[in-house]
Amino acid sequence: MYKADIKVLDCTVRDGGLMNKWQFSDEFVKGVYDACVEAGVDYMEIGYKSSEKAFSRKEVGPWKFCAESDLRRIVGNNDTKLKLSALADIGRIDFDDIPNAADSVIDMMRIACYVHQMDKAVELAHHCMDKGYETSINLMAVSKVNERDLDEALMDCAKSRVHQDALPGKEIGIHAHNNMQLAMSNTITALMGGATFLDATLLGMGRGAGNCPVEILIAFLKNPKYRLLPLLKAIQEHVLPWNRKIDWGYHVPYLITGALNEHPRSAMAWMDSEKKDDFVSFMKELHDYELLE
Amino acid sequence: MYKADIKVLDCTVRDGGLMNKWQFSDEFVKGVYDACVEAGVDYMEIGYKSSEKAFSRKEVGPWKFCAESDLRRIVGNNDTKLKLSALADIGRIDFDDIPNAADSVIDMMRIACYVHQMDKAVELAHHCMDKGYETSINLMAVSKVNERDLDEALMDCAKSRVHQDALPGKEIGIHAHNNMQLAMSNTITALMGGATFLDATLLGMGRGAGNCPVEILIAFLKNPKYRLLPLLKAIQEHVLPWNRKIDWGYHVPYLITGALNEHPRSAMAWMDSEKKDDFVSFMKELHDYELLE
Repeated sequence: MYKADIKVLDCTVRDGGLMNKWQFSDEFVKGVYDACVEAGVDYMEIGYKSSEKAFSRKEVGPWKFCAESDLRRIVGNNDTKLKLSALADIGRIDFDDIPNAADSVIDMMRIACYVHQMDKAVELAHHCMDKGYETSINLMAVSKVNERDLDEALMDCAKSRVHQDALPGKEIGIHAHNNMQLAMSNTITALMGGATFLDATLLGMGRGAGNCPVEILIAFLKNPKYRLLPLLKAIQEHVLPWNRKIDWGYHVPYLITGALNEHPRSAMAWMDSEKKDDFVSFMKELHDYELLE
Repeated sequence: MYKADIKVLDCTVRDGGLMNKWQFSDEFVKGVYDACVEAGVDYMEIGYKSSEKAFSRKEVGPWKFCAESDLRRIVGNNDTKLKLSALADIGRIDFDDIPNAADSVIDMMRIACYVHQMDKAVELAHHCMDKGYETSINLMAVSKVNERDLDEALMDCAKSRVHQDALPGKEIGIHAHNNMQLAMSNTITALMGGATFLDATLLGMGRGAGNCPVEILIAFLKNPKYRLLPLLKAIQEHVLPWNRKIDWGYHVPYLITGALNEHPRSAMAWMDSEKKDDFVSFMKELHDYELLE
Protein backbone atom coordinates (compact mmCIF):
# COMPACT_ATOMS: atom_id res chain seq x y z
CA MET A 1 0.00 0.00 0.00
CA TYR A 2 2.83 2.41 0.78
CA LYS A 3 6.49 2.55 -0.15
CA ALA A 4 8.68 2.01 2.87
CA ASP A 5 11.78 3.67 1.45
CA ILE A 6 10.30 7.12 0.92
CA LYS A 7 12.24 10.01 2.40
CA VAL A 8 10.45 13.33 2.72
CA LEU A 9 12.75 16.34 2.95
CA ASP A 10 11.28 19.59 4.25
CA CYS A 11 13.15 22.57 2.80
CA THR A 12 10.89 25.33 4.12
CA VAL A 13 13.72 27.28 5.78
CA ARG A 14 16.24 26.84 2.97
CA ASP A 15 13.90 27.40 -0.01
CA GLY A 16 11.37 29.67 1.73
CA GLY A 17 14.33 31.78 2.80
CA LEU A 18 14.84 32.76 -0.84
CA MET A 19 11.74 34.91 -0.30
CA ASN A 20 12.94 36.81 2.79
CA LYS A 21 16.75 36.47 2.66
CA TRP A 22 16.56 33.88 5.46
CA GLN A 23 15.41 36.52 7.95
CA PHE A 24 13.51 33.95 9.99
CA SER A 25 13.18 34.31 13.76
CA ASP A 26 14.65 31.53 15.87
CA GLU A 27 11.06 30.77 16.90
CA PHE A 28 10.13 30.12 13.25
CA VAL A 29 13.04 27.76 12.63
CA LYS A 30 12.43 25.97 15.94
CA GLY A 31 8.73 25.68 15.05
CA VAL A 32 9.53 24.04 11.71
CA TYR A 33 12.13 21.79 13.34
CA ASP A 34 9.75 20.61 16.09
CA ALA A 35 7.03 20.00 13.49
CA CYS A 36 9.36 17.91 11.32
CA VAL A 37 10.44 15.86 14.34
CA GLU A 38 6.85 15.26 15.49
CA ALA A 39 5.55 14.59 11.98
CA GLY A 40 8.22 11.98 11.29
CA VAL A 41 9.62 13.90 8.34
CA ASP A 42 12.93 12.30 7.39
CA TYR A 43 15.13 15.30 6.60
CA MET A 44 14.91 19.01 7.29
CA GLU A 45 17.01 21.26 5.08
CA ILE A 46 17.76 24.03 7.52
CA GLY A 47 19.58 26.35 5.15
CA TYR A 48 22.40 26.91 2.73
CA LYS A 49 25.98 26.11 3.62
CA SER A 50 27.83 29.17 2.30
CA SER A 51 31.11 30.89 2.94
CA GLU A 52 30.86 33.95 5.19
CA LYS A 53 32.97 35.62 2.50
CA ALA A 54 30.31 35.06 -0.18
CA PHE A 55 27.47 36.98 1.52
CA SER A 56 27.08 39.65 4.19
CA ARG A 57 25.25 38.92 7.43
CA LYS A 58 23.94 42.47 7.15
CA GLU A 59 21.88 41.34 4.17
CA VAL A 60 21.06 37.72 4.79
CA GLY A 61 20.04 35.80 7.88
CA PRO A 62 21.97 32.98 9.56
CA TRP A 63 20.34 30.20 7.52
CA LYS A 64 22.32 31.29 4.48
CA PHE A 65 25.45 30.06 6.30
CA CYS A 66 24.42 27.30 8.73
CA ALA A 67 27.20 28.10 11.17
CA GLU A 68 27.39 25.41 13.82
CA SER A 69 26.62 27.88 16.64
CA ASP A 70 23.42 29.05 14.92
CA LEU A 71 22.33 25.50 14.24
CA ARG A 72 22.89 24.30 17.80
CA ARG A 73 20.99 27.27 19.24
CA ILE A 74 17.90 25.74 17.59
CA VAL A 75 18.45 22.00 17.57
CA GLY A 76 20.98 21.40 20.38
CA ASN A 77 22.72 18.18 19.45
CA ASN A 78 19.64 17.11 17.48
CA ASP A 79 19.06 13.94 19.46
CA THR A 80 16.11 12.96 17.28
CA LYS A 81 15.43 10.72 14.30
CA LEU A 82 15.21 13.77 12.05
CA LYS A 83 18.26 14.26 9.87
CA LEU A 84 19.42 17.75 8.97
CA SER A 85 20.67 18.79 5.56
CA ALA A 86 22.22 21.92 4.09
CA LEU A 87 22.46 22.93 0.45
CA ALA A 88 25.74 24.17 -1.03
CA ASP A 89 25.95 26.19 -4.24
CA ILE A 90 29.01 25.70 -6.41
CA GLY A 91 31.29 28.72 -6.10
CA ARG A 92 29.72 30.01 -2.89
CA ILE A 93 31.68 27.81 -0.53
CA ASP A 94 35.31 26.78 0.04
CA PHE A 95 36.31 23.32 1.19
CA ASP A 96 37.65 24.82 4.41
CA ASP A 97 34.20 26.21 5.30
CA ILE A 98 32.92 22.69 5.83
CA PRO A 99 33.60 21.12 9.25
CA ASN A 100 34.04 17.41 9.68
CA ALA A 101 30.68 15.68 9.97
CA ALA A 102 31.69 14.46 13.42
CA ASP A 103 31.80 18.09 14.56
CA SER A 104 28.50 19.13 12.92
CA VAL A 105 24.78 18.54 13.49
CA ILE A 106 24.37 18.50 9.72
CA ASP A 107 23.90 14.93 8.48
CA MET A 108 23.69 15.51 4.77
CA MET A 109 25.29 17.95 2.35
CA ARG A 110 23.41 18.51 -0.87
CA ILE A 111 25.38 20.02 -3.74
CA ALA A 112 23.31 22.16 -6.12
CA CYS A 113 24.65 22.54 -9.62
CA TYR A 114 23.72 23.32 -13.19
CA VAL A 115 24.57 20.78 -15.82
CA HIS A 116 27.83 22.50 -16.84
CA GLN A 117 29.02 22.41 -13.21
CA MET A 118 28.79 18.66 -12.76
CA ASP A 119 32.56 18.09 -12.50
CA LYS A 120 32.86 20.71 -9.79
CA ALA A 121 29.84 19.28 -8.03
CA VAL A 122 31.34 15.78 -8.00
CA GLU A 123 34.60 17.19 -6.62
CA LEU A 124 32.78 19.04 -3.81
CA ALA A 125 30.59 16.01 -3.13
CA HIS A 126 33.63 13.76 -2.76
CA HIS A 127 35.13 16.29 -0.37
CA CYS A 128 31.93 16.21 1.75
CA MET A 129 31.90 12.40 1.71
CA ASP A 130 35.52 12.35 2.84
CA LYS A 131 34.50 14.54 5.77
CA GLY A 132 31.85 12.00 6.71
CA TYR A 133 28.58 13.42 5.33
CA GLU A 134 25.79 11.75 3.45
CA THR A 135 25.98 13.59 0.14
CA SER A 136 23.74 14.25 -2.83
CA ILE A 137 24.05 16.14 -6.06
CA ASN A 138 21.03 18.25 -7.00
CA LEU A 139 20.99 19.00 -10.70
CA MET A 140 18.93 22.15 -11.24
CA ALA A 141 16.82 23.35 -14.18
CA VAL A 142 16.84 19.87 -15.65
CA SER A 143 13.91 20.66 -17.97
CA LYS A 144 16.21 23.11 -19.79
CA VAL A 145 18.98 20.58 -20.44
CA ASN A 146 19.22 18.77 -23.76
CA GLU A 147 19.46 15.01 -23.50
CA ARG A 148 23.02 14.73 -24.75
CA ASP A 149 24.32 17.12 -22.09
CA LEU A 150 22.19 15.40 -19.48
CA ASP A 151 23.53 11.97 -20.39
CA GLU A 152 27.08 13.25 -20.17
CA ALA A 153 26.49 14.86 -16.78
CA LEU A 154 24.81 11.75 -15.42
CA MET A 155 27.68 9.59 -16.68
CA ASP A 156 30.08 11.84 -14.77
CA CYS A 157 27.87 11.56 -11.75
CA ALA A 158 27.58 7.79 -12.11
CA LYS A 159 31.34 7.41 -11.99
CA SER A 160 31.42 9.36 -8.73
CA ARG A 161 30.95 7.88 -5.31
CA VAL A 162 27.89 10.06 -4.66
CA HIS A 163 24.96 8.04 -3.43
CA GLN A 164 22.00 9.91 -4.86
CA ASP A 165 21.59 10.72 -8.52
CA ALA A 166 19.57 9.76 -11.52
CA LEU A 167 21.06 6.38 -12.38
CA PRO A 168 20.41 2.72 -11.54
CA GLY A 169 21.86 1.70 -8.21
CA LYS A 170 21.72 5.26 -6.92
CA GLU A 171 18.92 7.01 -5.07
CA ILE A 172 16.92 9.58 -7.00
CA GLY A 173 15.17 12.67 -5.70
CA ILE A 174 12.71 15.26 -6.98
CA HIS A 175 12.34 18.96 -6.21
CA ALA A 176 9.34 20.33 -8.10
CA HIS A 177 8.06 23.88 -8.61
CA ASN A 178 4.45 24.93 -8.83
CA ASN A 179 4.46 27.22 -11.87
CA MET A 180 1.75 25.19 -13.61
CA GLN A 181 0.16 23.82 -10.41
CA LEU A 182 1.91 20.54 -11.04
CA ALA A 183 4.48 20.45 -8.19
CA MET A 184 2.47 17.96 -6.13
CA SER A 185 1.54 15.88 -9.16
CA ASN A 186 5.09 15.83 -10.56
CA THR A 187 6.38 14.76 -7.15
CA ILE A 188 3.96 11.82 -7.04
CA THR A 189 4.78 10.93 -10.64
CA ALA A 190 8.50 10.92 -9.81
CA LEU A 191 7.78 8.72 -6.78
CA MET A 192 5.90 6.25 -8.97
CA GLY A 193 8.83 6.35 -11.38
CA GLY A 194 11.24 5.31 -8.66
CA ALA A 195 12.35 8.53 -6.94
CA THR A 196 12.57 8.16 -3.16
CA PHE A 197 13.80 11.56 -1.95
CA LEU A 198 10.88 13.97 -2.08
CA ASP A 199 11.44 17.70 -1.48
CA ALA A 200 8.56 19.79 -0.16
CA THR A 201 7.86 22.87 1.97
CA LEU A 202 5.17 23.93 4.40
CA LEU A 203 2.30 25.56 2.47
CA GLY A 204 4.54 25.29 -0.59
CA MET A 205 6.61 28.24 0.70
CA GLY A 206 9.33 29.05 -1.81
CA ARG A 207 10.40 31.36 -4.54
CA GLY A 208 7.88 32.39 -7.16
CA ALA A 209 5.09 29.85 -7.53
CA GLY A 210 6.57 27.84 -4.68
CA ASN A 211 7.12 24.14 -4.15
CA CYS A 212 5.26 20.94 -3.47
CA PRO A 213 3.34 21.54 -0.21
CA VAL A 214 4.62 19.07 2.38
CA GLU A 215 1.22 18.87 4.10
CA ILE A 216 -0.45 17.70 0.87
CA LEU A 217 2.32 15.21 0.21
CA ILE A 218 2.10 13.72 3.72
CA ALA A 219 -1.72 13.59 3.57
CA PHE A 220 -1.50 11.86 0.20
CA LEU A 221 1.17 9.30 1.11
CA LYS A 222 -0.84 7.77 3.98
CA ASN A 223 2.46 6.27 5.19
CA PRO A 224 2.15 5.32 8.87
CA LYS A 225 5.53 6.79 9.71
CA TYR A 226 4.22 10.32 9.14
CA ARG A 227 1.79 12.53 11.07
CA LEU A 228 -0.04 15.46 9.51
CA LEU A 229 -1.21 17.45 12.52
CA PRO A 230 2.18 18.83 13.64
CA LEU A 231 2.70 20.21 10.13
CA LEU A 232 -0.69 21.93 10.14
CA LYS A 233 0.14 23.43 13.54
CA ALA A 234 3.42 24.83 12.22
CA ILE A 235 1.69 26.30 9.16
CA GLN A 236 -0.92 27.91 11.37
CA GLU A 237 1.52 29.36 13.89
CA HIS A 238 4.56 30.18 11.79
CA VAL A 239 4.00 30.07 8.04
CA LEU A 240 0.66 31.85 7.68
CA PRO A 241 2.04 35.10 9.21
CA TRP A 242 4.73 35.10 6.51
CA ASN A 243 2.12 34.24 3.89
CA ARG A 244 0.33 37.48 4.77
CA LYS A 245 3.53 39.47 4.29
CA ILE A 246 5.08 37.90 1.20
CA ASP A 247 3.47 36.48 -1.87
CA TRP A 248 4.31 33.00 -3.10
CA GLY A 249 2.21 30.47 -4.96
CA TYR A 250 0.50 30.23 -8.33
CA HIS A 251 0.15 33.47 -10.27
CA VAL A 252 -0.36 33.88 -14.00
CA PRO A 253 3.15 35.34 -14.70
CA TYR A 254 4.67 32.07 -13.40
CA LEU A 255 2.36 30.11 -15.69
CA ILE A 256 3.68 32.15 -18.62
CA THR A 257 7.38 31.51 -17.85
CA GLY A 258 6.56 27.92 -16.93
CA ALA A 259 4.75 27.24 -20.18
CA LEU A 260 7.74 28.70 -22.04
CA ASN A 261 10.08 26.51 -19.94
CA GLU A 262 11.88 29.66 -18.82
CA HIS A 263 13.40 30.40 -15.41
CA PRO A 264 10.77 32.37 -13.46
CA ARG A 265 13.12 35.28 -12.74
CA SER A 266 11.38 37.62 -15.19
CA ALA A 267 7.99 36.66 -13.70
CA MET A 268 9.32 37.27 -10.18
CA ALA A 269 10.53 40.73 -11.18
CA TRP A 270 7.12 41.41 -12.73
CA MET A 271 5.34 40.25 -9.57
CA ASP A 272 7.48 42.70 -7.58
CA SER A 273 6.46 45.61 -9.78
CA GLU A 274 3.32 47.73 -9.82
CA LYS A 275 2.33 45.99 -13.04
CA LYS A 276 2.04 42.60 -11.37
CA ASP A 277 -1.59 42.04 -12.43
CA ASP A 278 -1.05 43.18 -16.03
CA PHE A 279 -0.46 39.70 -17.44
CA VAL A 280 -1.18 40.72 -21.00
CA SER A 281 1.68 43.24 -21.04
CA PHE A 282 3.99 40.72 -19.39
CA MET A 283 3.26 38.16 -22.05
CA LYS A 284 3.81 40.72 -24.78
CA GLU A 285 7.15 41.73 -23.25
CA LEU A 286 8.51 38.22 -23.52
CA HIS A 287 10.14 38.22 -26.93
CA ASP A 288 8.79 34.83 -27.87
CA TYR A 289 5.23 35.46 -26.72
CA GLU A 290 3.88 34.48 -30.11
CA LEU A 291 4.58 30.88 -29.20
CA LEU A 292 1.99 31.10 -26.53
CA GLU A 293 -0.50 33.61 -27.82
CA MET B 1 1.60 15.93 -30.81
CA TYR B 2 -1.89 17.02 -29.74
CA LYS B 3 -5.27 15.33 -29.58
CA ALA B 4 -7.63 16.76 -32.14
CA ASP B 5 -10.84 15.69 -30.41
CA ILE B 6 -10.31 17.62 -27.16
CA LYS B 7 -13.17 19.84 -26.06
CA VAL B 8 -12.44 22.41 -23.40
CA LEU B 9 -15.49 23.63 -21.51
CA ASP B 10 -15.18 26.85 -19.53
CA CYS B 11 -17.60 26.83 -16.59
CA THR B 12 -16.40 30.04 -14.89
CA VAL B 13 -19.86 31.63 -14.77
CA ARG B 14 -21.74 28.49 -13.78
CA ASP B 15 -19.28 27.11 -11.20
CA GLY B 16 -17.73 30.41 -10.09
CA GLY B 17 -21.29 31.61 -9.52
CA LEU B 18 -21.53 29.16 -6.63
CA MET B 19 -19.25 31.63 -4.82
CA ASN B 20 -21.35 34.77 -5.37
CA LYS B 21 -24.86 33.42 -6.10
CA TRP B 22 -24.35 34.26 -9.79
CA GLN B 23 -24.33 38.00 -9.06
CA PHE B 24 -22.10 38.70 -12.05
CA SER B 25 -22.41 41.93 -14.00
CA ASP B 26 -23.32 41.64 -17.66
CA GLU B 27 -19.84 43.02 -18.36
CA PHE B 28 -18.28 40.05 -16.55
CA VAL B 29 -20.31 37.46 -18.44
CA LYS B 30 -19.69 39.22 -21.74
CA GLY B 31 -15.98 39.39 -20.93
CA VAL B 32 -15.81 35.64 -20.29
CA TYR B 33 -17.88 34.96 -23.42
CA ASP B 34 -15.68 37.12 -25.66
CA ALA B 35 -12.57 35.51 -24.19
CA CYS B 36 -13.89 32.00 -24.86
CA VAL B 37 -14.76 32.92 -28.45
CA GLU B 38 -11.35 34.49 -29.11
CA ALA B 39 -9.44 31.74 -27.32
CA GLY B 40 -11.15 29.00 -29.34
CA VAL B 41 -12.61 27.37 -26.24
CA ASP B 42 -15.16 24.81 -27.39
CA TYR B 43 -17.98 25.24 -24.87
CA MET B 44 -18.90 27.90 -22.35
CA GLU B 45 -21.21 26.84 -19.55
CA ILE B 46 -23.04 30.08 -18.94
CA GLY B 47 -25.08 28.99 -15.95
CA TYR B 48 -27.58 26.62 -14.43
CA LYS B 49 -30.88 25.90 -16.11
CA SER B 50 -33.30 26.04 -13.18
CA SER B 51 -36.98 26.59 -12.67
CA GLU B 52 -37.92 30.13 -11.60
CA LYS B 53 -40.02 28.36 -8.96
CA ALA B 54 -36.98 26.69 -7.42
CA PHE B 55 -35.03 29.85 -6.54
CA SER B 56 -35.77 33.53 -5.99
CA ARG B 57 -34.28 36.19 -8.25
CA LYS B 58 -33.99 38.30 -5.11
CA GLU B 59 -31.31 35.90 -3.92
CA VAL B 60 -29.62 34.59 -7.02
CA GLY B 61 -28.53 36.25 -10.24
CA PRO B 62 -29.80 35.47 -13.75
CA TRP B 63 -27.19 32.77 -14.45
CA LYS B 64 -28.97 30.45 -12.05
CA PHE B 65 -31.84 30.31 -14.57
CA CYS B 66 -30.43 30.99 -18.04
CA ALA B 67 -33.63 32.58 -19.28
CA GLU B 68 -33.43 33.11 -23.01
CA SER B 69 -33.78 36.90 -22.66
CA ASP B 70 -30.83 37.09 -20.27
CA LEU B 71 -28.70 34.89 -22.49
CA ARG B 72 -29.40 36.87 -25.66
CA ARG B 73 -28.62 40.16 -23.92
CA ILE B 74 -25.04 38.88 -23.70
CA VAL B 75 -24.52 36.65 -26.71
CA GLY B 76 -27.14 37.82 -29.22
CA ASN B 77 -27.76 34.81 -31.43
CA ASN B 78 -24.25 33.53 -30.64
CA ASP B 79 -23.13 33.50 -34.25
CA THR B 80 -19.75 32.05 -33.30
CA LYS B 81 -18.07 28.67 -33.17
CA LEU B 82 -18.37 28.65 -29.36
CA LYS B 83 -21.11 26.36 -28.10
CA LEU B 84 -23.07 27.26 -24.97
CA SER B 85 -24.09 24.82 -22.29
CA ALA B 86 -26.22 24.98 -19.16
CA LEU B 87 -26.23 22.61 -16.20
CA ALA B 88 -29.47 21.23 -14.79
CA ASP B 89 -29.78 19.76 -11.30
CA ILE B 90 -32.26 16.94 -10.80
CA GLY B 91 -35.32 18.24 -8.96
CA ARG B 92 -34.62 21.91 -9.65
CA ILE B 93 -36.19 21.99 -13.08
CA ASP B 94 -39.43 20.89 -14.76
CA PHE B 95 -39.57 19.60 -18.29
CA ASP B 96 -41.72 22.59 -19.27
CA ASP B 97 -38.96 25.00 -18.21
CA ILE B 98 -36.83 23.82 -21.10
CA PRO B 99 -37.51 25.43 -24.49
CA ASN B 100 -36.96 23.59 -27.74
CA ALA B 101 -33.32 23.79 -28.79
CA ALA B 102 -34.43 25.53 -31.98
CA ASP B 103 -35.69 28.42 -29.84
CA SER B 104 -32.62 28.61 -27.57
CA VAL B 105 -29.01 29.77 -27.85
CA ILE B 106 -28.08 26.89 -25.54
CA ASP B 107 -26.48 24.07 -27.53
CA MET B 108 -25.91 21.50 -24.81
CA MET B 109 -27.78 20.56 -21.66
CA ARG B 110 -25.69 18.87 -19.00
CA ILE B 111 -27.58 16.91 -16.36
CA ALA B 112 -25.90 16.80 -12.95
CA CYS B 113 -26.78 13.88 -10.73
CA TYR B 114 -25.62 11.79 -7.82
CA VAL B 115 -25.37 8.06 -8.35
CA HIS B 116 -28.81 7.33 -6.87
CA GLN B 117 -30.41 9.79 -9.29
CA MET B 118 -29.21 8.14 -12.48
CA ASP B 119 -32.67 6.98 -13.61
CA LYS B 120 -34.06 10.48 -13.23
CA ALA B 121 -31.02 11.90 -15.00
CA VAL B 122 -31.50 9.57 -17.96
CA GLU B 123 -35.17 10.55 -18.15
CA LEU B 124 -34.34 14.27 -18.13
CA ALA B 125 -31.51 13.72 -20.61
CA HIS B 126 -33.83 11.92 -23.04
CA HIS B 127 -36.28 14.79 -22.72
CA CYS B 128 -33.53 17.28 -23.60
CA MET B 129 -32.43 15.15 -26.54
CA ASP B 130 -36.01 15.01 -27.79
CA LYS B 131 -36.06 18.81 -27.69
CA GLY B 132 -32.97 18.86 -29.89
CA TYR B 133 -30.07 19.47 -27.49
CA GLU B 134 -26.69 17.86 -27.24
CA THR B 135 -26.91 16.22 -23.85
CA SER B 136 -24.56 14.89 -21.22
CA ILE B 137 -24.93 13.30 -17.81
CA ASN B 138 -22.52 14.56 -15.17
CA LEU B 139 -22.17 12.09 -12.34
CA MET B 140 -21.02 13.98 -9.24
CA ALA B 141 -18.94 12.94 -6.23
CA VAL B 142 -17.78 9.84 -8.08
CA SER B 143 -14.89 9.27 -5.63
CA LYS B 144 -17.51 8.57 -2.94
CA VAL B 145 -19.35 5.89 -4.92
CA ASN B 146 -18.61 2.21 -4.37
CA GLU B 147 -17.84 0.27 -7.51
CA ARG B 148 -20.96 -1.86 -7.48
CA ASP B 149 -23.24 1.20 -7.40
CA LEU B 150 -21.09 2.89 -10.03
CA ASP B 151 -21.28 -0.12 -12.36
CA GLU B 152 -25.05 -0.21 -12.00
CA ALA B 153 -25.41 3.51 -12.69
CA LEU B 154 -23.13 3.31 -15.71
CA MET B 155 -25.09 0.35 -17.04
CA ASP B 156 -28.27 2.42 -16.79
CA CYS B 157 -26.48 5.25 -18.51
CA ALA B 158 -25.10 2.95 -21.21
CA LYS B 159 -28.60 1.80 -22.13
CA SER B 160 -29.69 5.40 -22.57
CA ARG B 161 -29.30 7.41 -25.74
CA VAL B 162 -27.10 9.97 -23.97
CA HIS B 163 -23.95 10.62 -25.92
CA GLN B 164 -21.48 11.41 -23.17
CA ASP B 165 -20.81 9.11 -20.26
CA ALA B 166 -18.18 6.80 -18.91
CA LEU B 167 -18.51 3.83 -21.25
CA PRO B 168 -16.96 2.66 -24.52
CA GLY B 169 -18.52 4.28 -27.57
CA LYS B 170 -19.55 7.28 -25.52
CA GLU B 171 -17.64 10.46 -24.84
CA ILE B 172 -16.20 10.90 -21.38
CA GLY B 173 -15.56 14.12 -19.50
CA ILE B 174 -13.76 15.23 -16.34
CA HIS B 175 -14.55 17.99 -13.85
CA ALA B 176 -11.82 18.11 -11.21
CA HIS B 177 -11.53 20.04 -7.93
CA ASN B 178 -8.36 21.45 -6.47
CA ASN B 179 -8.57 20.34 -2.82
CA MET B 180 -5.19 18.60 -3.01
CA GLN B 181 -3.75 20.80 -5.78
CA LEU B 182 -4.42 17.99 -8.24
CA ALA B 183 -7.23 19.46 -10.39
CA MET B 184 -4.91 20.25 -13.31
CA SER B 185 -3.03 16.98 -12.97
CA ASN B 186 -6.20 14.87 -12.65
CA THR B 187 -7.59 16.59 -15.75
CA ILE B 188 -4.49 15.72 -17.77
CA THR B 189 -4.52 12.18 -16.41
CA ALA B 190 -8.17 11.79 -17.45
CA LEU B 191 -7.28 13.15 -20.89
CA MET B 192 -4.50 10.58 -21.25
CA GLY B 193 -6.99 7.93 -20.13
CA GLY B 194 -9.38 8.81 -22.94
CA ALA B 195 -11.55 11.65 -21.61
CA THR B 196 -12.19 14.34 -24.20
CA PHE B 197 -14.48 16.84 -22.43
CA LEU B 198 -12.35 18.89 -20.06
CA ASP B 199 -14.00 21.27 -17.57
CA ALA B 200 -12.03 24.25 -16.34
CA THR B 201 -12.52 27.82 -15.11
CA LEU B 202 -10.61 31.08 -15.35
CA LEU B 203 -8.06 31.26 -12.51
CA GLY B 204 -9.71 28.08 -11.19
CA MET B 205 -12.66 30.15 -9.94
CA GLY B 206 -15.13 27.89 -8.16
CA ARG B 207 -16.40 26.72 -4.86
CA GLY B 208 -13.91 25.94 -2.11
CA ALA B 209 -10.53 25.01 -3.49
CA GLY B 210 -11.78 25.73 -7.00
CA ASN B 211 -11.34 23.94 -10.30
CA CYS B 212 -8.78 23.21 -12.96
CA PRO B 213 -7.56 26.63 -14.19
CA VAL B 214 -8.45 26.94 -17.86
CA GLU B 215 -5.40 29.13 -18.58
CA ILE B 216 -3.04 26.41 -17.32
CA LEU B 217 -4.89 23.74 -19.27
CA ILE B 218 -4.75 25.73 -22.51
CA ALA B 219 -1.07 26.60 -21.99
CA PHE B 220 -0.33 22.94 -21.35
CA LEU B 221 -2.28 21.49 -24.28
CA LYS B 222 -0.37 23.46 -26.93
CA ASN B 223 -3.23 22.66 -29.29
CA PRO B 224 -3.18 25.11 -32.21
CA LYS B 225 -6.93 25.62 -32.05
CA TYR B 226 -6.59 27.50 -28.76
CA ARG B 227 -5.15 30.91 -27.85
CA LEU B 228 -4.02 31.82 -24.35
CA LEU B 229 -3.87 35.60 -24.46
CA PRO B 230 -7.64 36.31 -24.52
CA LEU B 231 -8.03 34.17 -21.39
CA LEU B 232 -5.29 36.08 -19.56
CA LYS B 233 -6.97 39.34 -20.57
CA ALA B 234 -10.29 38.17 -19.13
CA ILE B 235 -8.64 37.07 -15.88
CA GLN B 236 -6.90 40.41 -15.59
CA GLU B 237 -9.97 42.51 -16.32
CA HIS B 238 -12.80 40.48 -14.84
CA VAL B 239 -11.73 37.64 -12.58
CA LEU B 240 -8.99 39.29 -10.48
CA PRO B 241 -11.43 41.90 -9.08
CA TRP B 242 -13.61 39.04 -7.81
CA ASN B 243 -10.53 37.23 -6.54
CA ARG B 244 -9.83 40.22 -4.28
CA LYS B 245 -13.38 40.05 -2.89
CA ILE B 246 -13.97 36.33 -2.46
CA ASP B 247 -11.61 33.59 -1.47
CA TRP B 248 -11.26 30.46 -3.58
CA GLY B 249 -8.31 28.17 -4.14
CA TYR B 250 -6.15 25.86 -2.06
CA HIS B 251 -6.45 26.26 1.70
CA VAL B 252 -5.56 23.70 4.35
CA PRO B 253 -9.20 22.97 5.42
CA TYR B 254 -9.91 21.76 1.87
CA LEU B 255 -6.86 19.52 2.03
CA ILE B 256 -8.27 17.98 5.21
CA THR B 257 -11.70 17.20 3.73
CA GLY B 258 -10.06 16.16 0.47
CA ALA B 259 -7.68 13.74 2.15
CA LEU B 260 -10.68 12.25 3.99
CA ASN B 261 -12.58 12.03 0.68
CA GLU B 262 -15.34 14.16 2.22
CA HIS B 263 -17.46 16.83 0.55
CA PRO B 264 -15.77 20.18 1.27
CA ARG B 265 -18.91 21.70 2.81
CA SER B 266 -17.57 21.56 6.37
CA ALA B 267 -14.31 23.14 5.19
CA MET B 268 -16.23 25.85 3.35
CA ALA B 269 -18.20 26.67 6.50
CA TRP B 270 -14.93 26.77 8.46
CA MET B 271 -13.37 29.10 5.89
CA ASP B 272 -16.37 31.42 6.30
CA SER B 273 -15.88 31.60 10.06
CA GLU B 274 -13.49 33.63 12.18
CA LYS B 275 -11.61 30.40 12.91
CA LYS B 276 -10.63 29.92 9.27
CA ASP B 277 -6.88 29.79 9.99
CA ASP B 278 -7.20 27.47 12.98
CA PHE B 279 -6.58 24.25 11.03
CA VAL B 280 -5.69 22.23 14.08
CA SER B 281 -9.10 22.79 15.67
CA PHE B 282 -10.83 22.05 12.39
CA MET B 283 -9.05 18.74 12.06
CA LYS B 284 -9.90 17.85 15.65
CA GLU B 285 -13.56 18.67 15.06
CA LEU B 286 -13.83 16.14 12.26
CA HIS B 287 -14.88 13.00 14.07
CA ASP B 288 -12.49 10.79 12.19
CA TYR B 289 -9.48 13.05 12.47
CA GLU B 290 -7.41 10.25 13.94
CA LEU B 291 -7.23 8.74 10.48
CA LEU B 292 -5.22 11.69 9.37
CA GLU B 293 -3.37 12.78 12.46
